[in-house]
Amino acid sequence: NTPTPITIARGDGIGPEIMDATLEVLQASGANLAYEEIQIGESVYKRGIMNGMEPSAWESLRRTKVFLKAPITTPQGGGYKSLNVTIRGALGLFANIRPCVSYHPFVSTKHPKMDVVIVRENEEDLYAGIEYRQTQEVTQAVKLISRPGSEKIIRYAFEYARANHRNKVTAFVKDNIMKISDGLFHRVFDEIAAEYPDIEHETMIIDIGAARLADTPEHFDVIVTLNLYGDIISDIAAQITGSVGLAGSSNIGDQCAMFEAIHGSAPTIAGKGIANPSGLILASVMMLVHIGQAQAAEKIHNAWLKMVEDGIHTVDIFKRGVSKARVGTRDFAQN
Amino acid sequence: NTPTPITIARGDGIGPEIMDATLEVLQASGANLAYEEIQIGESVYKRGIMNGMEPSAWESLRRTKVFLKAPITTPQGGGYKSLNVTIRGALGLFANIRPCVSYHPFVSTKHPKMDVVIVRENEEDLYAGIEYRQTQEVTQAVKLISRPGSEKIIRYAFEYARANHRNKVTAFVKDNIMKISDGLFHRVFDEIAAEYPDIEHETMIIDIGAARLADTPEHFDVIVTLNLYGDIISDIAAQITGSVGLAGSSNIGDQCAMFEAIHGSAPTIAGKGIANPSGLILASVMMLVHIGQAQAAEKIHNAWLKMVEDGIHTVDIFKRGVSKARVGTRDFAQN
Ligand SMILES: CC(C)[C@H](C(=O)O)[C@@H](O)C(=O)O
Ligand SMILES: CC(C)[C@H](C(=O)O)[C@@H](O)C(=O)O
Repeated sequence: NTPTPITIARGDGIGPEIMDATLEVLQASGANLAYEEIQIGESVYKRGIMNGMEPSAWESLRRTKVFLKAPITTPQGGGYKSLNVTIRGALGLFANIRPCVSYHPFVSTKHPKMDVVIVRENEEDLYAGIEYRQTQEVTQAVKLISRPGSEKIIRYAFEYARANHRNKVTAFVKDNIMKISDGLFHRVFDEIAAEYPDIEHETMIIDIGAARLADTPEHFDVIVTLNLYGDIISDIAAQITGSVGLAGSSNIGDQCAMFEAIHGSAPTIAGKGIANPSGLILASVMMLVHIGQAQAAEKIHNAWLKMVEDGIHTVDIFKRGVSKARVGTRDFAQN
Repeated sequence: NTPTPITIARGDGIGPEIMDATLEVLQASGANLAYEEIQIGESVYKRGIMNGMEPSAWESLRRTKVFLKAPITTPQGGGYKSLNVTIRGALGLFANIRPCVSYHPFVSTKHPKMDVVIVRENEEDLYAGIEYRQTQEVTQAVKLISRPGSEKIIRYAFEYARANHRNKVTAFVKDNIMKISDGLFHRVFDEIAAEYPDIEHETMIIDIGAARLADTPEHFDVIVTLNLYGDIISDIAAQITGSVGLAGSSNIGDQCAMFEAIHGSAPTIAGKGIANPSGLILASVMMLVHIGQAQAAEKIHNAWLKMVEDGIHTVDIFKRGVSKARVGTRDFAQN
């Protein structure tokens, strides 16, 4: 069997340490992969490349079409555009999938029964960065919602639900205020939902929906929503499982896909060996499923779950030092 | 003493019953008020007045400048603009103040120590309803952030913090994406914060901020933010105190002010006598403070707190029927 080529980037802050841990786990799982490593983020910005990516990095991504990415840091201030957003746009990664599961009682949480997947539109909304200063005193930003963009993400959510034996898709919109833009998304949702009679559907206003999610996450199954609402509610959902450090995510396009932890590069704890690699490890599980290596994916997922259940990877353990946890992860993966 | 004239509206759904309860409480408290009642909402829409308000209602509001408003229902569908948003805009109510407090152990909550006040900008952002369908397939909405609007709400937040002996103001923005619009709000926040060295300040990205609020609300004191973010986080904050039914809010302008519960008109439980009047009662407390009747305000607030603490007004009680609770409320207010 020829190995599947994938592109990896170690990123900034805690990126390199959690990528090393993840690569060890992948190795031990028997995943059949050929790595192309690219440089992105801080080191590239420092060389004056304003978007944080070298041309050769884009070539690698267009070749392998699969990207396992550690968190990076975008410099503050004028001129820099978020590299995450640049990559999503350039590769047409229209769907951002964020499963948020609690691992009660192994990871402490106030919401023991949650198992929510957030399907976030990933290209439109206010993320195009179309903004202007009309006068010194007045700025405007433009929110874009299109029918093709809405159809694509909503259909993806229903297909995802069906493939993963999930029963309900909830849309979050604010169409009592944005009747045209969010109204379009709502209308498309109703149209597409009608094609999936086997799956329940409902719509909630984002403010009430976010409040219910924060309070009663077990009400939800799959949630599909606009880019910015999805950004906010996926952080909420991940956090209330007990730790944002446990969530992996995928960014899916027609051609390419990118897999990453949902947390950031956490520069303040970088290099201390205390970072939790779970988010990137679970992202690599999603990646293996995506490229058809389900067996290796299951092996890693089971080993990771067992470790969490054995109390080796709970919050206090993360504090005891990642080297121990890494060895543990690898050992379990080998079984 | 001449009574202070205020305008009231009974609203739709559960509106009339909770307004009746609130008026009984106000009466018992010794508040010195002269009521002007106006009709707004459903009954007015039915008479073909598309914005839900008669000219005479506007006249009353411009005369009394103080409005105690029960929840209303805006009809779904084209042509109707949210009446809440219309009133905020017409009366220049730039600040929406939403205190979210938990009453542990008297009201069951996962967050026993929260005491957060959300100061939400109330006129700008995507709420202007400037939207257009560019083609059949593409819609856009315009988000407006201005320096005067930002200065006004941010200064209000710091003044509020100082007047209410609160120690910290946190701003929520998304200026890693919206560098110009949210960036302006952030810059103005830093400028104004520098004028209040006695009050701590910090800024959070909205996704991370909302997640921390949902998980660890006791971290926060006063939060100031843009209209839409404020809409979302104030519902979250109110919900996780244990009940959205307990939160009152004020909408403050240079000339006028409006006081209301943050929950909606709940048509499904209307007329059953089971609605919880607490939100509107607490809104009326905010109103009394605003018009300088602090003594009556304190009387109601204390009576209400005592009732909650005596277990008369806990969630199970709301289910036992509001008439009992109302009598209870009045009895306590009279002491
Ligand atoms: C870093 C930032 C641009 C990004 C976003 O807003 O999408 C992040 O918050 C995320 O959710 O992946
Ligand atoms: C009803 C709606 C227009 C309103 C808003 O979005 O402001 C409500 O959600 C609120 O928070 O007062």
